Amino acid sequence: MVVVVELSIIPLGEGPSVGRYLAHAVRALEGFGVKFEVTPMSTVFEAEDVEGAFEVAKAAHEAVFLGTDGKVKRVITTVKVDDRRDVEKGMEEKVRSMMEAVEAEEQD
Amino acid sequence: MVVVVELSIIPLGEGPSVGRYLAHAVRALEGFGVKFEVTPMSTVFEAEDVEGAFEVAKAAHEAVFLGTDGKVKRVITTVKVDDRRDVEKGMEEKVRSMMEAVEAEEQD
Amino acid sequence: MVVVVELSIIPLGEGPSVGRYLAHAVRALEGFGVKFEVTPMSTVFEAEDVEGAFEVAKAAHEAVFLGTDGKVKRVITTVKVDDRRDVEKGMEEKVRSMMEAVEAEEQD
Amino acid sequence: MVVVVELSIIPLGEGPSVGRYLAHAVRALEGFGVKFEVTPMSTVFEAEDVEGAFEVAKAAHEAVFLGTDGKVKRVITTVKVDDRRDVEKGMEEKVRSMMEAVEAEEQD
Repeated sequence: MVVVVELSIIPLGEGPSVGRYLAHAVRALEGFGVKFEVTPMSTVFEAEDVEGAFEVAKAAHEAVFLGTDGKVKRVITTVKVDDRRDVEKGMEEKVRSMMEAVEAEEQD
Repeated sequence: MVVVVELSIIPLGEGPSVGRYLAHAVRALEGFGVKFEVTPMSTVFEAEDVEGAFEVAKAAHEAVFLGTDGKVKRVITTVKVDDRRDVEKGMEEKVRSMMEAVEAEEQD
Repeated sequence: MVVVVELSIIPLGEGPSVGRYLAHAVRALEGFGVKFEVTPMSTVFEAEDVEGAFEVAKAAHEAVFLGTDGKVKRVITTVKVDDRRDVEKGMEEKVRSMMEAVEAEEQD
Repeated sequence: MVVVVELSIIPLGEGPSVGRYLAHAVRALEGFGVKFEVTPMSTVFEAEDVEGAFEVAKAAHEAVFLGTDGKVKRVITTVKVDDRRDVEKGMEEKVRSMMEAVEAEEQD
């Protein structure tokens, strides 16, 4: 089984540039060995199930506090889980079937 | 410690009215005994920490599948956690301090 | 016609407390005369249609920059629109039908 | 100026597979000629400003209703706008600076 998860972590209060704080979260994802992709607005990853999705999300969220030694005092984290139980579709399959639907539409 | 959590659960594919499916999720929140509030677009609850927040969210998400005996095949769940470690602010304090800031602004 | 809209505005970089910045956004909502409700995690309002929803959201977002005289340099705003065209349900109807579904479930 | 926008459109009620409905939204993006990228969980695009961002989002949302001839009766659309006014960062710059921060962290 696979669920696809979108993760957005926003550290508040330490300037408008937050990349160096988010790097700790990405490192946490690497540590879990999950398949993931950094997009311009969030990070998408695959997990086996909802429990696994939240375990990874929690670790990434916590890593922002831990990696900055108490400098960051507030983090707003959003986790979106797409849990589909009729067919199995990973990250790549989702994008591929979306693009196929667009192409089919264009040929109409 | 307290974190404030916004939970949105969207069951796909079983008609535009989804209240009867979401009722299972609300019942799960009741079962946990957390403080929660149903808003027009989501449900907000309090948890002790991020781990507790995701535990409750997972149970609510799972309840939609379990309570509908396999009828619902896809659920997209979004969990937003506001984790603030400088001061402790629960659901009511957050709304109160927002309203106080609005009043202060009005008097300027 | 009515659409229900959830609005979340996050100003980055000016400390963990952002209420005084968001007050400008709430004042913008008041200026439009829309029905709205401040929840612990966002603000929910009603608009006539999607166009109206985005018009109000844009004004609220812009108010955070304008009201702080360039102090806030980055704002991440999320707008969620629930656009239902089979039946008309405002903010209060949505909460009421959710609670009725929960009660029906409890009596099962 | 540039804002980066994440768009998620969820048509409710017409089965768990929604790609053929979302194809209309992607076609609307193509029609605007904006730079966009389909990710596994949403679509990210660039706009000149918040007004332009919401104009494109509204057209994509509306396209799902229009393209399906009234079949889809409810759509929940989420638009997240990252509006940064200190430096200009488009979609590619955002991913690049995130990856650079991760590499810098790895070398520590």
